[in-house]
Amino acid sequence: MQISLTGIKPTGTPHLGNYLGAIRPALELTERFESIYFIADYHAFTATHDPKALCSHVYDVAATWLACGLDPERTIFFRQSDVPEVFELSWIFQCLLPAGQLERGHAYKDALARGDSPNAGVLAYPALMAADIILYGAHVVPVGRDQKQHLELARDVAVRVNHLFGEGTVVVPEPRIQSEVMVPGLDGRKMSKSYDNYVPLFAGERELKQAVMKIVTGSEPLEAPKEPEGTTAFTLFQLVASAEQAAEQAAKLRAGGYGWGHLKQALAQALDAELGPQRARYSALRSDEAALDQVLARGAEKARARAQETIMRVRRRIGIRKPG
Amino acid sequence: MQISLTGIKPTGTPHLGNYLGAIRPALELTERFESIYFIADYHAFTATHDPKALCSHVYDVAATWLACGLDPERTIFFRQSDVPEVFELSWIFQCLLPAGQLERGHAYKDALARGDSPNAGVLAYPALMAADIILYGAHVVPVGRDQKQHLELARDVAVRVNHLFGEGTVVVPEPRIQSEVMVPGLDGRKMSKSYDNYVPLFAGERELKQAVMKIVTGSEPLEAPKEPEGTTAFTLFQLVASAEQAAEQAAKLRAGGYGWGHLKQALAQALDAELGPQRARYSALRSDEAALDQVLARGAEKARARAQETIMRVRRRIGIRKPG
Repeated sequence: MQISLTGIKPTGTPHLGNYLGAIRPALELTERFESIYFIADYHAFTATHDPKALCSHVYDVAATWLACGLDPERTIFFRQSDVPEVFELSWIFQCLLPAGQLERGHAYKDALARGDSPNAGVLAYPALMAADIILYGAHVVPVGRDQKQHLELARDVAVRVNHLFGEGTVVVPEPRIQSEVMVPGLDGRKMSKSYDNYVPLFAGERELKQAVMKIVTGSEPLEAPKEPEGTTAFTLFQLVASAEQAAEQAAKLRAGGYGWGHLKQALAQALDAELGPQRARYSALRSDEAALDQVLARGAEKARARAQETIMRVRRRIGIRKPG
Repeated sequence: MQISLTGIKPTGTPHLGNYLGAIRPALELTERFESIYFIADYHAFTATHDPKALCSHVYDVAATWLACGLDPERTIFFRQSDVPEVFELSWIFQCLLPAGQLERGHAYKDALARGDSPNAGVLAYPALMAADIILYGAHVVPVGRDQKQHLELARDVAVRVNHLFGEGTVVVPEPRIQSEVMVPGLDGRKMSKSYDNYVPLFAGERELKQAVMKIVTGSEPLEAPKEPEGTTAFTLFQLVASAEQAAEQAAKLRAGGYGWGHLKQALAQALDAELGPQRARYSALRSDEAALDQVLARGAEKARARAQETIMRVRRRIGIRKPG
């Protein structure tokens, strides 16, 4: 069975857009792949030097993903920082990558273009990302279009390692660009914290309903037939309800005598049906950091066993250890 | 007791110049400091991608330093690659250092100036060197003038860590620029492999004598009084013999009736007296790689205990782990 890998950046509590656009599709990988998920705490350190926030965000995302259905028994779920071998492999890759290639990295160039003085972690990040992938022998790494360049670099370096030190030294990963699920926010633009148009993922039923009621809709009279396709409320409904339920809502709207308010009520219900149980699980999980630590530590054990295999093979092939 | 740290680059069997100029002074640190020595195998990987050479050079230098008197019981002697925490700390430092600061590094700039396309390891090397030093809480790092910039960077980053995350997070190292021992080669220039003017460190008695006889001297007749000060043969003699022996040779030369050939014979004898026992030890040590592995593994255990202490404290302070 092929291995898939998903990195999770710990940046606070996710919203509905993150859930529908990233978390749920990533969790579906479990059906087809041996799936590995890790919380990229040391990636986050390129951007934040706030210890309290970093520490707390790791627990936030751990509880979120578990609440959303990540099964730590069937998958490998761990903290990046629990497997220090990744930094060793990243160093090896740095020694094999021309500095100029890292200097052409998007994130680094964008930071320079903004007039920032990016730290060397931003520059070296693609080498660490390559190590994240290759250390666990991941075959498939589903990423958004913005990560394509980084994945190509990971592929490049894997090919280079095998060329220099023998085929089979590392697994060459396959970038798989994910067709992005576009989740509209309350105002119709992409749902995003920076637009403040998002639905909190673990809001209570009332808060959820209030948010849904703010969705911008057409102002046709109740009796008028309405075209749901492409509207924010209907798109969100399609994302959380079954195909039959969506077809039913569409038919009612097209028939007339059924308002946007009715659709929004159906949406609030559907959201509560999907998110209610998760909300309860999240509260329980988030309130017990020691238990989260245990889950992540068990995952780290499994991850580390894999990592050891790769790093020992690499060490032998590159001459850091004797062959054999 | 303060801690001193010495990094050893594994670049083949050292010659007499390395011994007198670097190894012997470094071993003298043991008298005044709690001394740590490590073989920087992963530093070497910035420059060489030849697995056989890298692997074998590590054993070469391990056997050399032990033969020259490094006592693995009184000191900590280990392979850099045996303590992967150093790469984690190096990553942390990369996230705290502006990329521009690394881009101004001598080694990197020199490589660019030569028209090379340096790898990202050359660029990041000062961050790894800082981690090498700070991970073990070294107070004193004796280096040559060429390493001064790197040490200043290590000092900078330690100060920054303590400023951002609390005093006492790491020990701020003290650069101590070593007045270089200038060891002349056979032709009077600095002894160096690239000038091919060196005396092999573990040459047999005959080979040693042959090398010494090649030393370029004056051509005064035997009877003439001779001024030894500053000559290659006498400088080397001073470096290996006692002050009394040197004074005796100087007196004879100044008196006349004593030739450069006599001095060279005395030098060959003094060298053999100093190096003979080391030569025998080196042969025995170098022929048993498993035993060297054991010595280095025991050293790594001691080193890792120290490293763990530092990295756990740093992880807690920066938010990668919970405080406390």
